[in-house]
Amino acid sequence: MPRFIEKLDTAARRNHSLLCVGLDPWGPSLPIPDVAAFNRAIIEATGDCVCAFKPNIAFYEASGLEGMRALEQTIKAVPDGIPVILDAKRGDIGNTSAAYAKAAFEVWGADAVTVNPYGGGDSLAPFLAYQDKGVIIWCRSSNPGAADLQGRTLSGADGARLLYEAVAERANAWNVHGNVGLVVGATAHIELQRVRALCPDMPLLIPGIGAQGGDLDASVRSGVDRHGMHAIINSGRQVLYASRGAGYAQAARKAAMGLRDAINATRQAMGFRWS
Amino acid sequence: MPRFIEKLDTAARRNHSLLCVGLDPWGPSLPIPDVAAFNRAIIEATGDCVCAFKPNIAFYEASGLEGMRALEQTIKAVPDGIPVILDAKRGDIGNTSAAYAKAAFEVWGADAVTVNPYGGGDSLAPFLAYQDKGVIIWCRSSNPGAADLQGRTLSGADGARLLYEAVAERANAWNVHGNVGLVVGATAHIELQRVRALCPDMPLLIPGIGAQGGDLDASVRSGVDRHGMHAIINSGRQVLYASRGAGYAQAARKAAMGLRDAINATRQAMGFRWS
Repeated sequence: MPRFIEKLDTAARRNHSLLCVGLDPWGPSLPIPDVAAFNRAIIEATGDCVCAFKPNIAFYEASGLEGMRALEQTIKAVPDGIPVILDAKRGDIGNTSAAYAKAAFEVWGADAVTVNPYGGGDSLAPFLAYQDKGVIIWCRSSNPGAADLQGRTLSGADGARLLYEAVAERANAWNVHGNVGLVVGATAHIELQRVRALCPDMPLLIPGIGAQGGDLDASVRSGVDRHGMHAIINSGRQVLYASRGAGYAQAARKAAMGLRDAINATRQAMGFRWS
Repeated sequence: MPRFIEKLDTAARRNHSLLCVGLDPWGPSLPIPDVAAFNRAIIEATGDCVCAFKPNIAFYEASGLEGMRALEQTIKAVPDGIPVILDAKRGDIGNTSAAYAKAAFEVWGADAVTVNPYGGGDSLAPFLAYQDKGVIIWCRSSNPGAADLQGRTLSGADGARLLYEAVAERANAWNVHGNVGLVVGATAHIELQRVRALCPDMPLLIPGIGAQGGDLDASVRSGVDRHGMHAIINSGRQVLYASRGAGYAQAARKAAMGLRDAINATRQAMGFRWS
């Protein structure tokens, strides 16, 4: 099985895309009531213009067993060549994290999972031990409350830093197997630049464009690595709910292609081409 | 419906107990293969000597849909008078946290849920909005990696503090509806005392006695409030796996009563009595 990062790069190159579509079905908004069928239609319609799909497990868990069944069916519906990032923000101590890692990678079958660093390095170790899977650490979120803890200043013998910067630095240390990425919200450009500077090669998952107000052009400019890669630009609602009518899948495809092209226009202006 | 904290106090007073039994079935260790049946037997055997039950959702999710069904059955099996704390360490931005809160409280039917504060106040708001439910914030964990972030020093205009202390302070500010608690590991006595000083009345969930090496007597002394209440002393493996043979339920009961009595001995030495 290819490692997550290779699968991601291959999908990005094949589809000429840094776009990730967030599969976040939030009940009241769905054009059809069957979540798994809706997702399958979205996956089929957009599968050739994304580098990844990202189901957020919360929106499935909120529908109980039926929702979890839809998650299982959704992940199975993603073609083999496209990585699935399970957005779960998991994290706990030792054997609990091992159970979460087993769930994400072995039960649901994700290629990568988002995790929460609050418990420290040994709380992430059971995830990191899956060397061919991606472990994407929540570093700087896109919400106003990010200031409450992530934006606080840490003192240290080697100088002051903000908490999210300390997380990025730790992420480098935890990246022994080369399977670590970071989540940085699109609404936080300065922070995105700062994280990219601290972690020059790491995949950055960037949610928050569109509905949350993040600027796409600035996110691409700040997010890509020196090869114009490893920015995973996520869009959920803008693609999923491009239309609430019968033509929702075609509308989703059009929205996804529009986003992919806009990302590529910025990328091209920066001097990067898909070869 | 009584609020979480009232339900907790009532159960503690009725059963003369600050003991919480962690319902963490970890497959290979179970004396019988049916998780829900095992939990039901444990709940029946120990229900009159606990103040709460705490299923950890990770250990159910690790068995997929079947595990989630067992979680549902387990929570339904807990008698009405005993609160269920769903250990989930959830946290994400806005509508994702709303979906997690709906899952914990409305789908699974928990009375309280553990959450992760890394996303800041607005990431917890959707949980806190359930005013009759408990929201127990992961403050200081019981693992060595707690030092990585939680133990770092924050600078501030009003003096330096450690990150977990800042979380405890924020918890007071977030406690508008009186439904906030904190998780502090039993392996961290100084930190437990410090959190109790910062949050004199708040329920503290204290995992980590027994298998993880936390000292029971010291945890009770540092954890209770000025009425000898609001320490929720969790034990998982020590009760669940007291015996792996046919008499596992009776052995669990004996272990739970032993822990309850040991907690009460410390409580009594401190001058607190159940009246």
